[in-house]
Formats: sequence, C-alpha cells, structure tokens
Amino acid sequence: MSDDAAFRPIPGDVLPRFAGVPTFMRLPHVPPDDPRAERVDIGLIGVPWDGGTTNRPGARHGPRQMRDLSTMMRNVHHVTGVQPFRAARCADMGDSPVNPIQLDDTLARVEAFVAALHAQAIKPLTAGGDHLITLPVMRAIADRARPLGMVHFDAHTDTWDRYFGGAQYTHGTPFRRAIEEGLLDPKRTIQIGIRGGLYNATDKEWGLAQGIRVVEIEEYFDLGPDRVAALARETVGEGPVYVSFDVDGLDPVYAPGTGTPEIGGYSTHEAQRMLRALRGLDIVGADVVEVSPPFDPSGTTALVGVTLMWEILCLMAERVGRDREGAS
Amino acid sequence: MSDDAAFRPIPGDVLPRFAGVPTFMRLPHVPPDDPRAERVDIGLIGVPWDGGTTNRPGARHGPRQMRDLSTMMRNVHHVTGVQPFRAARCADMGDSPVNPIQLDDTLARVEAFVAALHAQAIKPLTAGGDHLITLPVMRAIADRARPLGMVHFDAHTDTWDRYFGGAQYTHGTPFRRAIEEGLLDPKRTIQIGIRGGLYNATDKEWGLAQGIRVVEIEEYFDLGPDRVAALARETVGEGPVYVSFDVDGLDPVYAPGTGTPEIGGYSTHEAQRMLRALRGLDIVGADVVEVSPPFDPSGTTALVGVTLMWEILCLMAERVGRDREGAS
Amino acid sequence: MSDDAAFRPIPGDVLPRFAGVPTFMRLPHVPPDDPRAERVDIGLIGVPWDGGTTNRPGARHGPRQMRDLSTMMRNVHHVTGVQPFRAARCADMGDSPVNPIQLDDTLARVEAFVAALHAQAIKPLTAGGDHLITLPVMRAIADRARPLGMVHFDAHTDTWDRYFGGAQYTHGTPFRRAIEEGLLDPKRTIQIGIRGGLYNATDKEWGLAQGIRVVEIEEYFDLGPDRVAALARETVGEGPVYVSFDVDGLDPVYAPGTGTPEIGGYSTHEAQRMLRALRGLDIVGADVVEVSPPFDPSGTTALVGVTLMWEILCLMAERVGRDREGAS
Amino acid sequence: MSDDAAFRPIPGDVLPRFAGVPTFMRLPHVPPDDPRAERVDIGLIGVPWDGGTTNRPGARHGPRQMRDLSTMMRNVHHVTGVQPFRAARCADMGDSPVNPIQLDDTLARVEAFVAALHAQAIKPLTAGGDHLITLPVMRAIADRARPLGMVHFDAHTDTWDRYFGGAQYTHGTPFRRAIEEGLLDPKRTIQIGIRGGLYNATDKEWGLAQGIRVVEIEEYFDLGPDRVAALARETVGEGPVYVSFDVDGLDPVYAPGTGTPEIGGYSTHEAQRMLRALRGLDIVGADVVEVSPPFDPSGTTALVGVTLMWEILCLMAERVGRDREGAS
Amino acid sequence: MSDDAAFRPIPGDVLPRFAGVPTFMRLPHVPPDDPRAERVDIGLIGVPWDGGTTNRPGARHGPRQMRDLSTMMRNVHHVTGVQPFRAARCADMGDSPVNPIQLDDTLARVEAFVAALHAQAIKPLTAGGDHLITLPVMRAIADRARPLGMVHFDAHTDTWDRYFGGAQYTHGTPFRRAIEEGLLDPKRTIQIGIRGGLYNATDKEWGLAQGIRVVEIEEYFDLGPDRVAALARETVGEGPVYVSFDVDGLDPVYAPGTGTPEIGGYSTHEAQRMLRALRGLDIVGADVVEVSPPFDPSGTTALVGVTLMWEILCLMAERVGRDREGAS
Amino acid sequence: MSDDAAFRPIPGDVLPRFAGVPTFMRLPHVPPDDPRAERVDIGLIGVPWDGGTTNRPGARHGPRQMRDLSTMMRNVHHVTGVQPFRAARCADMGDSPVNPIQLDDTLARVEAFVAALHAQAIKPLTAGGDHLITLPVMRAIADRARPLGMVHFDAHTDTWDRYFGGAQYTHGTPFRRAIEEGLLDPKRTIQIGIRGGLYNATDKEWGLAQGIRVVEIEEYFDLGPDRVAALARETVGEGPVYVSFDVDGLDPVYAPGTGTPEIGGYSTHEAQRMLRALRGLDIVGADVVEVSPPFDPSGTTALVGVTLMWEILCLMAERVGRDREGAS
Repeated sequence: MSDDAAFRPIPGDVLPRFAGVPTFMRLPHVPPDDPRAERVDIGLIGVPWDGGTTNRPGARHGPRQMRDLSTMMRNVHHVTGVQPFRAARCADMGDSPVNPIQLDDTLARVEAFVAALHAQAIKPLTAGGDHLITLPVMRAIADRARPLGMVHFDAHTDTWDRYFGGAQYTHGTPFRRAIEEGLLDPKRTIQIGIRGGLYNATDKEWGLAQGIRVVEIEEYFDLGPDRVAALARETVGEGPVYVSFDVDGLDPVYAPGTGTPEIGGYSTHEAQRMLRALRGLDIVGADVVEVSPPFDPSGTTALVGVTLMWEILCLMAERVGRDREGAS
Repeated sequence: MSDDAAFRPIPGDVLPRFAGVPTFMRLPHVPPDDPRAERVDIGLIGVPWDGGTTNRPGARHGPRQMRDLSTMMRNVHHVTGVQPFRAARCADMGDSPVNPIQLDDTLARVEAFVAALHAQAIKPLTAGGDHLITLPVMRAIADRARPLGMVHFDAHTDTWDRYFGGAQYTHGTPFRRAIEEGLLDPKRTIQIGIRGGLYNATDKEWGLAQGIRVVEIEEYFDLGPDRVAALARETVGEGPVYVSFDVDGLDPVYAPGTGTPEIGGYSTHEAQRMLRALRGLDIVGADVVEVSPPFDPSGTTALVGVTLMWEILCLMAERVGRDREGAS
Repeated sequence: MSDDAAFRPIPGDVLPRFAGVPTFMRLPHVPPDDPRAERVDIGLIGVPWDGGTTNRPGARHGPRQMRDLSTMMRNVHHVTGVQPFRAARCADMGDSPVNPIQLDDTLARVEAFVAALHAQAIKPLTAGGDHLITLPVMRAIADRARPLGMVHFDAHTDTWDRYFGGAQYTHGTPFRRAIEEGLLDPKRTIQIGIRGGLYNATDKEWGLAQGIRVVEIEEYFDLGPDRVAALARETVGEGPVYVSFDVDGLDPVYAPGTGTPEIGGYSTHEAQRMLRALRGLDIVGADVVEVSPPFDPSGTTALVGVTLMWEILCLMAERVGRDREGAS
Repeated sequence: MSDDAAFRPIPGDVLPRFAGVPTFMRLPHVPPDDPRAERVDIGLIGVPWDGGTTNRPGARHGPRQMRDLSTMMRNVHHVTGVQPFRAARCADMGDSPVNPIQLDDTLARVEAFVAALHAQAIKPLTAGGDHLITLPVMRAIADRARPLGMVHFDAHTDTWDRYFGGAQYTHGTPFRRAIEEGLLDPKRTIQIGIRGGLYNATDKEWGLAQGIRVVEIEEYFDLGPDRVAALARETVGEGPVYVSFDVDGLDPVYAPGTGTPEIGGYSTHEAQRMLRALRGLDIVGADVVEVSPPFDPSGTTALVGVTLMWEILCLMAERVGRDREGAS
Repeated sequence: MSDDAAFRPIPGDVLPRFAGVPTFMRLPHVPPDDPRAERVDIGLIGVPWDGGTTNRPGARHGPRQMRDLSTMMRNVHHVTGVQPFRAARCADMGDSPVNPIQLDDTLARVEAFVAALHAQAIKPLTAGGDHLITLPVMRAIADRARPLGMVHFDAHTDTWDRYFGGAQYTHGTPFRRAIEEGLLDPKRTIQIGIRGGLYNATDKEWGLAQGIRVVEIEEYFDLGPDRVAALARETVGEGPVYVSFDVDGLDPVYAPGTGTPEIGGYSTHEAQRMLRALRGLDIVGADVVEVSPPFDPSGTTALVGVTLMWEILCLMAERVGRDREGAS
Repeated sequence: MSDDAAFRPIPGDVLPRFAGVPTFMRLPHVPPDDPRAERVDIGLIGVPWDGGTTNRPGARHGPRQMRDLSTMMRNVHHVTGVQPFRAARCADMGDSPVNPIQLDDTLARVEAFVAALHAQAIKPLTAGGDHLITLPVMRAIADRARPLGMVHFDAHTDTWDRYFGGAQYTHGTPFRRAIEEGLLDPKRTIQIGIRGGLYNATDKEWGLAQGIRVVEIEEYFDLGPDRVAALARETVGEGPVYVSFDVDGLDPVYAPGTGTPEIGGYSTHEAQRMLRALRGLDIVGADVVEVSPPFDPSGTTALVGVTLMWEILCLMAERVGRDREGAS
C-alpha cells in the first residue's frame, strides 16, 4: 500500500464533481519538473495532437475533454475492489509539448517528454491524440533488448507502410514503424476488433507475416470476450506489455467522437470485460487514443475513453502495489 | 374489459401523431380535481423536479419531453396482445406540484399529490424527475403494514446514507430512507444492473445487510435477462410491487440524456424482455426516472423512457383488467 | 376588461414553467367543440403541416415545439403594459386537422377548422406549419367584399405562380392565390425583408404590378424599423388586417430552424419594434410560420416564434378589449 | 472480372477521402443519358423523396448525406475478399427526378427513371427516401410472370392498407401494393425485425395470410442472426430477389436519424452478418431507405446506411461477376 | 507595473492553446491556501452552483466550460493596449465550495470563500453559477459603511421579492436582498437591457422606488451603447463599483446557453463597447453569470462569457496597476 | 453575354435543390483536364486542407459542406440584377490535390493545380480550407511585376511572422509571406474587421509599417459598412484585386463553424453590403476560407460561406461579361 495523501483525488463530497480545475480523475497536477514528480508511480498525461490524421482531425482536443469527464471517476473498482489511488501514487502530469503543424518536431517533443517520466520510473497512462502518438511513447519507454508486447484494441491494424506516395508517419502506420524499430515484438502482439473495407487485397499480409495475432471482429464475435481475453494473455506472455486502446475498436455507437468510425464493433461492457481479464500483467505503459471531441461535443465518447483509462489504471496500480509489496 | 371511450387516446389517423397538445400517450388530460378522475384506474403523471441531483441537473424537464415523444406510442402490445386502454381506464393526470428551489417543500407537495390519487384508488405511473421523487410517491402509496416489494433497474443502488456532511435526501438515498421508514421491504427488493466505481470500499454493505438482492451488471451478463427476470419474480413474490426504472440502468448509448451515466449497461431489448417477464405481478405503482432532456435534445432518451412506460403500463393495465374481471 | 378566470394561464409560481401539459402560453385547452369555446375571443391554434414545402420539410413539428417554449411567456407586456389575458379571453384551441400526405385534403380541413372558429367570432392566432397554411386560414376568415390587408414579414414574396410544371399550391404561392381569389387586397399589402437570389429576372414583377408594397431588405436597412413600420400602417390603412410572420424574414441567426434561410435579415428586436408600432390596427387573424424544429432542436427558433406570437397577441387583445369597451 | 478503369473509384491516396465532389463511393458520375451508361452493371442511385411519410419527414435529404459519408468506403470486402469495383462495372447514376409536393407524379417519375436503367440491364442499388420509393422501383424492374422474392429488414411490415381514410400510398403500404400488383411474391418474402406497438389487434393478419414469413424481433433474438439468415435464404429460394433495408430495423442507437424509430432492434454487426449470408443470391435490385439527416446531422446514421449499401453491393457485384464469367 | 513571472499565463507558442490543464486564461492555479495567494491582486474564481434557478438549471457547469474556452484569451487588449497580466498579479484561485442541494449552506460557503480572498485584498472576478451567487460575493466584499455601486447587465432586474410563496433567495432576488442588507446602493446602481414579459404590472415598482436607474432595452436602443455607458459612469460615480454581467442581457443569439433567454438584446460588440467605457472605475469585484453549458455544448456562450471576463479583467488590472504606481 | 448552355446550373424545378450530386451551385463538374475546361471563365474550386491551423482544425471539410449548401443558390442577384451564369462561363472544377499530413507538399500541389487553371485564363473562386491556402493560390496567379491588391475580411491580420519557434507557414502568416514574395502589394491592401487580444504589444507593427490599411473593428463600427467599402475601393485602386473572406471576420453568431472565433464582428448583411460596393473591380481571384464543419454540423456557417461566394461570383462574372463585351 502506498496510501500517500499527496496523491489523492479531491473527494466528491468536498467539492462536487462538476467543480474545480479539471485534472485527470481530480488528481493533483504534478508537472514533470515539480519536486513531487519523483515519487509518482503512474503519470496520467495527455498528448493533444492529431497531425498524423489522414481523414477527420480533432483528436488534439481529446485530452481536454477527457480531463473534464474524468472528474466523474471514483475511488474503488466495483468488481475487483482495487483502490488505485491507494495502491499507487498517481498524478496528472499535464500534457506533452506538441507542434500542431510539424510532425517530426512533435514526435521528438513527445518522446522527450515521456522519456523524462521514464527516467524517473513513472509509467505513462496517456490520453491521445491520434494513434501516431503511441510511437514516440514507445520510443521513450521500450527496451529494445526486450521489446514490448501489446494488447491492441482497434478497428484497424495501423500497420500500413506509406501514405500518399511516401509519408511513413501517419496514424495508420505506428505499429509497422514500432516493429521495424525493434520497440514492439510482433509475436507478443494481439490486435482485437479489426474490420472495415480494405484499400488493397494485400493489406493484411505484412502484419500476419510478422506473427501478429489478428483477431478480426468476426472471430471476436465467434469467440466472445472471455476467450479473446485469454488469447490476449497467452499472446503477450510474461514480459512488459503495452495496452493501446483506440476507441474506434468499439462500435461507433459507443464512440461516435472519433475520426475513422467502422460500424460493427464490440461494446463497452465487452471491452471492460477483456481489460479486467488482463489483471496482473506487467503493463509498463498504456493509452486511450482517437477521442475526437468535435465529432462528439456531448462528451459521451470522452466518458467512455476515461472509463477505459480508469479500468487500465486499476490494472496498472494493482500491479505497482503488488510489486512494491513484493519488494519491501 | 373496461373499454371506456372517455379514456381513449386520440387515434393517429384522426390527428397525426405529431399534432395536438401532447399529453402522455395522447390520453385525455384529467387533473385530479376533474370529475372524471374518480373513474381512472391508472394515472400517468409527471414529477418535474431534480433538486436531489448532486451532479448534472436537468431531469426536471423530463416529463415535458417524455409527453412529446409518448405521442408515438400506439394501442396494442405487439407481443402480449395487451390493449392497455381497453383493459384499464388511463389518463394523463398532469404534473405534481414541485418547488424548484426547496427540497422539503417538494417532498411534501409530491406526497400530497400522489396521496390524492391513491385515495381514489388510482395507481400512479410516473415520469421523473430525479430518483429522489420515488420516495414521496412511496410515502403516498405504501402500506407500512405490508411494505412494498420492488423491481429496481439502475446502475446505482441509491442506498447511500448522507451526502455532503449531512444531507439525507438526495437522488442517491431514496431507498435507504424508504427502507428505514418501513415503506419498502428490502427482502422483496431486487436491484438490476448495478455498476460503476465506488466512493468507498464499504458502499455495498448496508444494502446487502438489509437483504436486498443486488444483481451487479457482471452477474446480469452472466445470467442473461431471462434468468434475471425469473430472479426478480422470485424475489418480489406475491405482494404489492413497485417498479422503478432509472434509465441509467441502460447502457448510456440507449439513454445518453441522463445525469450520471455509467458505461457498460443492458440494452433496451433486454429491458423490455425483463419487464415483460413481470406479467401478472401486483404492480401498485411505477416510475421511469432520470431522463434529462438538456443532455439529449434529440429526444432519443425520452423515446426510450416512454416506451418503457408503455411496457409497464401494459403490465399494470392487464392486471387491473384481470382484477376487475375477477371481481365482477 | 374581460378578466375571465376561466381563460387565464397557469401562474408560474403555482406550477413552475417547465411543468405541466404544454398548451400555448399555459392557457386552458378549449377545443372548438368545448362549451367554453363560444366565449373565446382569440384562439391560439396550430396547423402542423409542411406538405407545401419544396425544399427542407419539418415545419409540421412547429406547433408542438412552440407550445413547449410558449410556457416561458408571462402576463404583462413590459413596454405597452398590455395584459392580454385580461384584455381578451384567450385559449389554446388545439391543432387543426391536417393530412400529411395529401395537399388538397389538408387545405379543406384547415379551412373548415378555422371557419368553425370564425363562425363563433374567434380570431385565429396560428402557429404553422409552412406558409401555404395561411391560404386556407384566409379563405376561412376573409370577407371577399372587403379583402384583407396584410403586414407580411418574410425573406420571400411567396407570390410565385406555379412550381414543377404545374403545381399551384406550394409554400411559395399562397399570396398569389389569395390575391387571385379576392381574399387579399394587394394595395393594402406590404412585404418586409424580401431578399435572396431569384430564379428568374422577372420574379418580382407580378407582385409589384398588383400594387404590393415590397420593402426589400436593402430598403429596410436604409429606412430602419420605425419608418418601415410607419409605411406598413400607411399601407394597410383602416380595414381588417392580417399579420403573417415567416420566421425566415429574420436573419437566420435568430431563426436557424427554418426551411429556406436567407442570410442578411433583420433582428428580433427590430421585428418587435415593428410589431409594436402596429398597435390599434384591426388585426383579424395572424400567424407565425416556418418554424422547423428538426433544424433547431435547441428550441431557440421556437422561442423566437412564440415571443413574436406574444407580441401579436398583445396587439390583438388590446384591440379586442378596446372594441368591447367601446361596444359596452 | 470486369476490371474496367472507367468505373473505378478515386483512390484515397490520390485525393483524400474528404475531398472532391461526393459521388456514391467516389465512383464516376454517369447519368442515364451518358454514353458510358450502357456499359454499367450496377447503378447506385438516390431517390430523394419523403412524400409518403406520415410522421417525421426528412428522408428526402438521405441520398445527399449518404453520398457524403460513402466516400469513406474502400475497395475490398475484408471478410469475403470481394472487390466489387473489379467484379462489376459500377457508377453513380445520380438521383431520380421527384416532385416534393405531388405523390402520384413522383411515383411516375421514379418508375420511369429506374425503367430506363432496367432497359439497359443495369441493376439499381438505391439510397432512399422513405419506404414508399421501393414501390416504383419494383414496378420498373419486376417481371410479373416471375415476381420478386424479398429479404426485408425493418421494424415495420409496411403492409398496411389505407391511411387517413383512404390514402393507399404511404411509406406504410408499399408491400401491400406490390403484392396486390403482382410484383412481389409473398411466399418468397421474409421480414426481419418487426416490432413496436400496433394500431389494431388485426394489423398482422393480412401479411401472414399472404404467406409472408414474418420474423418478429423476439423470434429474431431467440434464433440469432445466423439462423435467421438461413431462414431468409430458404424463404427466397432461387429466383430473383430484392433486398430492402429500412434502417429502422436496426436499434435506434445505430440509426437515430430516421422517422419512425422503435427501440429494441438488432445491431449493425448482426445486420452485416445476415447480409453476408445472402452471398450468391440473384439480387436484381436493392435499397437502403429511411435515413433522415435532419434527425442525425452527425452523419452516423448515413455512415451505417452506406456501409450496408457497401455490403449489398459486394453481394450484387460478386454475382454479376460470376454470371459474366459463367456466360463467357 | 507588477510584471511578476509567477503570475503569467502559459504562452501559446510554448504549449498550444488547446493543450494543458485548463485554468482561467492559462494562469497558474493558486488556491487560497497556497503561499503565493497573498501576493495575488485579482483572483479569477468559479462559483459552480445553480440552486437558485427557478427554471432551467445548468449554470453549475459554467466555470468548467468557461475555463476551457478561456484558454483562447491572449495577453494584450487590442484597443486599450492594457496588458493585464503585467499590470496586476492574477491567478486562477479555483472554485468556491458549494452544496448542490442546499441553498443556505451554499450561501455560507461562498461568502466564506470570498471573504478569505477579501481578507488578503484580492479582488474577485467570478464565473457563475446562477445570479444568486452574486449575493454571497457582495456579502464578503461590501463595506456597509460605503455600499457598492453596480453596473448591471441583464435582461431581468433580479429585484423580485419572494418566489413560490415564500422563498426569498432565488436567482431572481439577489439585488433586492443586497439593497435590503445595505450591501448595494440603489442610487449608484444601473441596470442595462431589462426586457421581457412581466409577471405582474407592478414588477418594476420596487426597484425604481429605491432609485435604481433602469435602462430598459428600448431606451438602450434609442440611446445607443456610448450614451448608456456614459449614464453608467455618471450613476456609479466615484466609489467602489461592482460589475455584474448576466449573459442573458445579450441577445440570445450571442448567448444561447443560458437559463432564461429573452429575445431582443444587445450584441457582444455593444457590450464590449460599454465595458471599455468603464475604464478607471474602482471595480472591487465583478462576475459573469448564467452561462449554462447544457444549453450550449458548442461552447459559443462560454467563449462570449470569458471574453467579457477578459474585458473586465483589463479594466480591473489597469486600475490596480495605476493604484499601485500611485502608491509607490 | 456568354449564355452558354453547357455551363448552366441544374434548375430547381427540374431536380429539387436537395437532390443530385452536389457540385458548387449545381454547376457542371468540369475537372481541369476535361476538354470543356478551356472555355471556362470562372472556376469554382475547393482546397480541402487545414494543415496550417494552429488551434482547432476542421476546415479541410469546408468545401464538401459548402458544395452541399451551395445548391440553395439561385440565378439572379436580387439587388444588382446580375445573372452570373449568363455573364460568364462558370464550372465546378473540383478540389485541388492536397496532402493532409505534409505542409510543403500541399503548398506545391495547390499552386500547381491553380496554375493550371490560370494558364487557361480561368479565374479561381475558392472555398477553403484554412487561410494558408491563399498563399499558393496567390503564387499561382499573381504577376510579380504587378502585384495584387487585396480586400481582406478577417478578424486577424494573418501577418504574423513565425510560429512555435520557427514555422513560417501557418494560417496566421500567409500575407506576410505574400508581401515578402512580392505577390501582394501592401499599399493596395485593406484588412477589415481586425480584433481580438494580441499575443504581444508589437503584433500590429509590421503590417502597418508595410502600408496596409488596417480597419480594426472599432473603426469599422464608427465608419459603417458604406464608408469602409469606399475606403476599400480607394485602397485597391485600379489594378488586379484579390478578395479574401475569412468567415471569422463575421461575428461568430453568423459563423460559429470556424477555428478561431472572435466575438464582436460584423453581420452578414454588412458583409454583403461591402462586397456589393466592390462592383467593377478587376477581381482576378477570390476565396472564402475557414469554414469548419465539425464546429457547425448544422451547415449554417457553410450557407453563409457560399452566399458570400455567390456575392463575389456576381462581381467577378459581371466584370468578365463586361470585359468580353468590351473586347468584342
């Protein structure tokens, strides 16, 4: 237990949930250069950028709206009983610097920001941003000697190669790059919910050839969430794992506020069920991406996004707590 | 059969469904002091109040929007064949008086309004309002000698104790108060769909200790709607039953217009299935609450709410008709 | 004074304005066949129909939403001091029958409905519906021996002839028909706010040739509302007058919920100013048309529409009161 | 294979998907009188009309919004591998002429437009419009000697007889008329997803008496999509088939933008699953109807609608390709 | 000049305006108990409460959305050249505690919160909340020996007496109470933009009898903003002044997100013009109230609200700077 | 007169305005490589790109929505009587190629696209896109020997230098670059409506030093539209002129769908008035930019945008017609 009062959310009966400056889950705002930062276990951060988006932009506004809705989260996971803010020291560490009009500069800024956290042994839990932002995060935290496994929820594989006659960095390419760069172990990677028309008949080949376990949505519905979650555990095994949740993996009715919706996905309940089945994994980083507020001003999608962050946070915090107890 | 022409809806081929002053289900407007009131069996009413709401208000506008959408309801239940407006004398009896800025005064006004109906043997079917409005309704109709059973659809137990250092009446406390006051029999109470983060690890304890049968959403999905409905019948048994449907029991995609959405709930089809399984119970009152139009100006949530009212009305009317036939 | 308690709105401190079955301005609902009808001076009615609409339909939903928003109206005009519900007996007389898929049948139904009011000396104040609904209203109330004058607020003249190779009844033709039928006196007709691209260079000719005083928006802005209102009084003179307010006469920012918006119109304040300058005229009927809720679910346009109805009602009621006093 | 470069969509990496004049699926615009028309196999068309709508209009705007969203479709079906634009020559052939205010004239115009395509052996895949538009399409393409079978997805049977005391053509009557006129074979017709309150207890009788296989939503949920799809194949057998998909067959959360939503329907995934099971049938025409943009400006419903068109197009194109290969 | 780097906003070219935890105008978050607080000159605060609202609630969400939009503000006033963050030390001091369900408790909490600032000589610039929140702010800062003058922008006088048969504290009564309590000097009070129907013919009398200068909207339009602003200066004279801006003083097209819109108000440009004419006054506190996000999820109203806060901040900061210079 | 039937819009009484593939103003779609292109006088094009946007993206979707709404335009200007489709040969020439993730590549693609039109003496009338798109258009059409004058409607000068420590191409810099490159003559440039907080006290200096005539909004309101338009004519004089209309020059109530709204602008009527005063100028190119549909799904802003395009088109076509007549 690391029940540290400096890292606790503002209680809802002290200040109502709609009140106050909205940090992630009402946690204290601890920028990376704050003296308290060195004690943080899990850093909730935003990467407000959508410069890798080839169709409908807007995910740059995701962290702001997700912070707003995150104030509806509470303290105890109702199924697992995990109390993340007691199990680990959590903080809102602000947003990474980004450059809205320059892609390369942004990749460098994000990597540097997350690397600074990583240097202090802070695990990042990130609100995107489009899916390209996962690449610089992985660059900052992956150990090439022991590449990351990944549980990847998405409608798209994001393993395309080039776009528009050359561009190698878009929100459709991060995992191809991550594998090429040795950050991500394709054989410990599972992608869940893949669907939607293809550009070319060969779109699927590269990823499968690398050994990625692709669970297309049809297979998903045949197996059901419990068996798919078991497959996920089996695939990623024991090493360090990254969890990346693109909200377009959900059916668009659950996440209308996103750039590339594909009809026919899974439900939030099913997503929760799969996430909870990942208890105990060594999750060294995670993100929820592609929440695009201009396409859902109501905040419904952001509420879904932050509730999934809450589910992942409980996984991460429980493991942090266990590791600390084991170490002590 | 009580096929009384004075209590029939305006047919859609006389006046199109979008036309006319919108009463509940196009029924005649029969205020409690109208001479026709004494012949009414089931009174559809509104309680337009949200002063018990601790987060996002708006449910005070629920009855207005639900009346509007209710004009899309028709005459015959397509599965059970029940014709509620022939089986029982139904009327829109208007809205209860409320006081938008004073909680205690409102509780008194609502209780008095419903008590006047109860004195004429009119069963209330209520459109809320936030969930606190169920408390004064129960005060008006419950027989403390034979407390009510309840089938309660909700994401939250609404059995918290105090709020904000003292307040004992909020939309999170009605059923604690009702049990304490002897209106509600916890052992004949079932709560279906409970979920969402907890404030404290002990939040669940009081209700379980009273004997409430709590079906959390995880158990719900494991059992499925048919078995849960069977559990509900078993729990409430033979006595008088109240049905209380908070639309946040549904997944938020079905009811975005509500104050405290929790992702991962059941569908409207499943809700319909559970409600239909309650045929024959002695439902002495019912409500559909927490429809909050400002959070769903499209009216989708209100349409869901009134269709659930329609399902419940068919249950109530069928029983009324049967009781009358049995009595005659 | 005809301060008749049977025709008074429900006060806002008895039942809050968001509560209750929404009739126009919270007046009693007095259908034409109600015994109280014969005492009514001014009947507020809806004509929920848009079958004359050649572009974006939706005005059939206008009366419903306008009733909803009309509950925000109060009792005393803050500038003129008129108290319409004391000066005249007013009631919500419901919606006219209409046929959503048959134009001719609808014209007949509306005419018959309004004629029944007219036979009881009730002046209609109508919420549309598209602008074609003014034609059957005029047929019901106009005295061909003494045709109506008209103050017409609109972006369009609505004096086109035929549409689509023959159709003579659309929402672009009512006033051509009304003049041809001898219901409307073009020389006592003024149209205020006309603008927007033309189909043909000759579009304006017919109306001008009849003697209609057309105030295009450019002239309107050069003269200002006070001088235009003076022109209107001068044009209609002393006889019976009809006031027809198409909300697209306003700039679309004030009335986005309409079928044929034209940018660059007048403001609501200016409209109020012009309407108030019509005090004392013998307004025998009036309408506010083309409020289309599907294009403005927020209700802003409907609020504008009903506030304009309130302004017109004060004009009509003051004159009714004065005439009654004069007669007594 | 009919891989004809003249009938290929604009690739997304030549012009981004949000760019360009929006034709259906970015196909070339080939009006019926274009010389290229005679080579077209499948014509994607719009019928922008809602004059048969008895409640909430707006479907006339469907084709416009569906074209917009259809630019997100791609080239290869990710499950079946079908490449429709290689298997068949497809084109956007524009919108049928319609008359917004005259029903009979519209029925004639649509029939003539589609008959002209049919004369060139072009199979129509239509975006509605309300459901009445299916009737003139069937009149244009059905061979009375060998009437059409139909797989019909809908919440309503659309086999009512008359409306409003006489009207025989509304969006609630097309299939009664089609059966009476010998266009549609009721014994080869299946209706999937029927639900919602009835006007009269006898509403279901006529269709069942004709031999239509009606799968009400309750039976649907008991059987599941795979068995229902098998039933559909069995029912329509080997002859020519029409597929008509009213988006209100889906649960309203998937298709809020429609005129007559009924809660408790199937999901888009389930609809996709059923459609894919129809591979190989001789689909001679199809439509997706009742997308009503004013009730869903976000375009979510239109995206669902065009993705279902994509699913059906793959079925049609695969069969066209196979027939051509068989013939060659 | 008090160009203190500790109280400067985050520049937009360091972190884009859509990024970061949203404090008011990107200022540092300095809670009242932060050691830096004692150096603050002007405290931007929120009072997220709408428990005094008699019609449409939602203003409790105002401060959150206003913080979000306030990040679009910049550093230099483009007309006056004032640089508020150099002229005075400004900070976001968070939200006042409130109690969403208890009115009296809230009045006490807000007064205590603001009194603590006042004790440190911090001038409050407040984002509401409904208009009742001005009362406890005035209680905290007014010197009864030298009551406040007020420039009050509003559609309503908010000088009603009781509501609902007794309630003396609602958002319609704050200035009656403030005058009765000796906080506010009616003879130094001007109200600009008053309009809308009255409940009773005597509604205006009390305020006028106290000596308030009421500029109804008709007088406003006759005089124009420059002369009205001159009247305002003349009315409030030399003593301490409070500026209270209810966004419903604006025409609803500028501020649709509010609880009690009244058509026919002034524009934002005119409001800016009037505010700028108040340069040099001794503004000891100010607020912008009644921004209700549920009625405008787009944030347009909040942007208006915070831009008016910016205008007022420039007035206050310029005077603070001048006073400091004078003192030094 | 160049009344060429090949370049006429589809009439609204042949196909209703909501029907058909939406090209700009229902004109024929004539891509640059179409043989008809060489006869075009004025090419309506889209540049769907927002990669220069530093805050809220979305303008890439502008041309699509503007095409949709443009189908409501008609044939004859109601004030000037100009018939643009008779005075000049107009066509929708499609969208320029763009690269959503690479700024430099986009600048090159747009310049090449417009240069190809320019080579055929086609004058571009462009729908943006963000304001950076004006730069490559100017590069394509400006004659450095005789630089362009410009009438520029905007809230911002767009003459900033660098952004984010170096970036020289953003939507805040196009006119600085255009002046530096000799494309634009600052002494023949007028900017109308400038307002909003500044980043730095020196923001205004560069432009004024170049000799740009900056009409800040305060001066605008003091002078009024007629005198400002006269100033504009005087400033640009006789040479070639570019008209660039950023919709954020308008008050945000007229154009909520834009990325950087600034409250307190002019109205659409005033904009129309100013544009009409530019009759006769030698407008060699024009654009309407910064319409951002995700921030206004209702299409209101796009309707405003295309109506302004219509106003400009009438100016351009009248001059083309006159020049042709003069030449013949």
